[in-house]
Amino acid sequence: MIYPEEFAELIESFQEFPGVGEKSAERYVYTVDKLEEEKVQEFAHRLINFKKNIKRCSVCGHITNKDVCDICSNQNRDHSTICVVEDPRSVFMFEKTGNYKGVYHVLGGLISPVDDVNPDDINLYTLVNNRITEDVKEVILALNPSVEGETTSLYIQKLLEKQDVKISRLSYGIPVGADIEYLDPLTIIRAIDDRKILS
Amino acid sequence: MIYPEEFAELIESFQEFPGVGEKSAERYVYTVDKLEEEKVQEFAHRLINFKKNIKRCSVCGHITNKDVCDICSNQNRDHSTICVVEDPRSVFMFEKTGNYKGVYHVLGGLISPVDDVNPDDINLYTLVNNRITEDVKEVILALNPSVEGETTSLYIQKLLEKQDVKISRLSYGIPVGADIEYLDPLTIIRAIDDRKILS
Repeated sequence: MIYPEEFAELIESFQEFPGVGEKSAERYVYTVDKLEEEKVQEFAHRLINFKKNIKRCSVCGHITNKDVCDICSNQNRDHSTICVVEDPRSVFMFEKTGNYKGVYHVLGGLISPVDDVNPDDINLYTLVNNRITEDVKEVILALNPSVEGETTSLYIQKLLEKQDVKISRLSYGIPVGADIEYLDPLTIIRAIDDRKILS
Repeated sequence: MIYPEEFAELIESFQEFPGVGEKSAERYVYTVDKLEEEKVQEFAHRLINFKKNIKRCSVCGHITNKDVCDICSNQNRDHSTICVVEDPRSVFMFEKTGNYKGVYHVLGGLISPVDDVNPDDINLYTLVNNRITEDVKEVILALNPSVEGETTSLYIQKLLEKQDVKISRLSYGIPVGADIEYLDPLTIIRAIDDRKILS
C-alpha cells in the first residue's frame, strides 16, 4: 500500500464521479491537501446538506429544497402551459434562457423497453392524472430527438389524446450559429419538415 | 437564482478543483444527486478525515497519517541513500516503480526568486541540518529539469559541498518508448552529455 489510508479512500471516492480516473482523482486529492481546512469542511457539509435537503417537487418533479419548487409556486408563471422534460438539467437550461414563462413537468427518465424502463418507472402518471386540469391549455413535449425521447413523446400524446389540451413539441431544425454544410442529413430533413411559413 | 441554494453552493465547491469549470461542476452535482446517501456521507467523512489525519512526516516531509511516515520508519529501507524530491507526488511515482530502496526528502516546493520562494520557504534546512549524518552515503537530486529545479539542485549542492557525501542527480535522456526523431534538441543534448559508457 503506497498511499496512506485516508489518501487512498479519497481517491476511491473521487472516482465515483463521471470522467474521473485515477490520475484526476489523485490531482483532486492533492487539491484537498492544499485547500484550507475550513474550505474542505464547508465542502463536506455542503455534500451532506445537499443529500439532506434536496428532493423532488411534489407537483412537477423538479429538483428543489422545498415541498413545491419555486417555479410551481410562482403565481406569475403561466400555469396553463406545461413543458414536459426528461430531467432537471433541461429545466435549468430552459430557465437560463429566461424566455419560457410556463411551468414544467420533469419525467426523471424516458420510456425505454430495451433498458426495461416502463411508463410506470418515470414520473408520468402524475402529469396525466393530476396536472391536466381544464385550466391547462398546452403541453409542450421537450424531449431529446432520440428513440427513447420519441417513444415517450408518442406515449404521452396517446395518453392525452382524449383530453381537451393542445400538444406541441419543440421544433427540430438548424441550431443557431451552425453551418448548413456541416449538418447531418437527418437534421436537414427535419428542418425542411418543420419549416416555418414566412408569408 | 435558478438553482436551489444547496445546489449552487455545491457547484461552487466543486469549482475549487483544478480543471473543473461550471459545466463539469454541474455534472458532479447531478452525480451527487444520483449517488446513494451513504456514499455521499462516506465521501464527506473521508474529506474531513483526510484534513484531520493527513500531515507531513517529521523526518522527510512526505504525506503521512503518522508522525513518521512508513518509508522513514521502515528498517528494511536503505537509510544511507536520500532521494530529494519536490513534492509527495514524486515519492508516490518512485514508490510505484517498486525499484528504489532508499529513503526520501520532500522539499514541498522549489527555490524560485521570481515567485519569491526562498530557501527558507521550503523544507530544505532539515535535510542539511538533521539528516546528513555520517551514515548517509549518497544524496540523489530528483528535481524537475526546470529553472527552479536546477536552481534548487545547485543550491543543495553548495550546501552539502563540505560534507562527506556523494551527490548525484537523475540522468537526463531519452524517455523509454520515445522516438528520437520527435525529441526536442535539448533532450538530445542532455542525452549526449549524460551518455553511458558501455565498454
